Amino acid sequence: MPTLDAPARDLLFDHARTHIAWTPKPVPDETLRELYDLMKMAPTSANCSPARIVFVRTPEGKARLRPALAPGNVDKTMAAPVTAIIAHDLDFPERLPQLFPHADARSWFAGNDELIRTTAFRNGSMQGAYLILAARAVGLDCGPMSGFDATTLDEAFFAATRWRSNFLCNLGYGDPAALFPRSPRLSFEDACRLA
Amino acid sequence: MPTLDAPARDLLFDHARTHIAWTPKPVPDETLRELYDLMKMAPTSANCSPARIVFVRTPEGKARLRPALAPGNVDKTMAAPVTAIIAHDLDFPERLPQLFPHADARSWFAGNDELIRTTAFRNGSMQGAYLILAARAVGLDCGPMSGFDATTLDEAFFAATRWRSNFLCNLGYGDPAALFPRSPRLSFEDACRLA
Repeated sequence: MPTLDAPARDLLFDHARTHIAWTPKPVPDETLRELYDLMKMAPTSANCSPARIVFVRTPEGKARLRPALAPGNVDKTMAAPVTAIIAHDLDFPERLPQLFPHADARSWFAGNDELIRTTAFRNGSMQGAYLILAARAVGLDCGPMSGFDATTLDEAFFAATRWRSNFLCNLGYGDPAALFPRSPRLSFEDACRLA
Repeated sequence: MPTLDAPARDLLFDHARTHIAWTPKPVPDETLRELYDLMKMAPTSANCSPARIVFVRTPEGKARLRPALAPGNVDKTMAAPVTAIIAHDLDFPERLPQLFPHADARSWFAGNDELIRTTAFRNGSMQGAYLILAARAVGLDCGPMSGFDATTLDEAFFAATRWRSNFLCNLGYGDPAALFPRSPRLSFEDACRLA
């Protein structure tokens, strides 16, 4: 039974940190495509794949993003080579005939806006988590953030669509000198039960 | 810059599949602890870590779970060595003084039930995604599912708490003979934009 070796566990989980300062090393678009080609393979409910990603990496894109950011997130986000907007498409059911050909999954969502919103948020958040681990897999450091105004951001980037922002994640090559000491985690006994 | 090698990418993303049939090989509790010790390290907003997991692996636990399951999920779930209930604790802010000692993060949530629910759902879903990839890292196969009645499940498992179920994930060693052909994924052009 294959398992992940120790260096790979360190890369994805144990040694990886949330970064707040960035070296000037650029991130090629090719690396973002490599990241997406990994994250897209991880599972979602009925393969619904609601996440949509905007990789903001030009000065013009950053300027559009800036007014939506919480004050404490502006400097590090302007300095990051790339900021990924993790969003989801509330029209994701329209893709289900292609993505889930085994059943008429689109009909499960017809007229049920609450189910659409919940499914998009749950599975889009899961795909955001896959994005973080896929970014680490391709050698990038991550700085995920929830501190922004979603209404402002959605007006700036998604006005003509049903895409809605979920969270942001700076991507690049982090400067480890700026890291805080690592925060503790809950023990198995605190977070888990056996039944 | 270290990156994940091809066998590790296959294990976590490219060759891993959602399983619906299980070999009889048992899953030791020690493997579930190893899984949790990986997933807990991946990031959440302000390290809030709202996910709570119940690993159901006894006949008594499975019998408690059964009435909550959608009919199509009963047989495979009863047959799986372990079913993880991925839940989140709406009282997660009470842990923030321990988990995020840099600031008074608990006060951000005081009296704001909508922010508590949204933060728990987003970050708990992300931790559920980390659980799936961590399970694969320790050699387990996964069968995640959204088809169950949350009210029935929460009454059976979480009556005296503020834990709320999010999704389920069967865990064990899958039988590849039962797999469907792999479903397609959205292309980079369909799911991503560069800005």
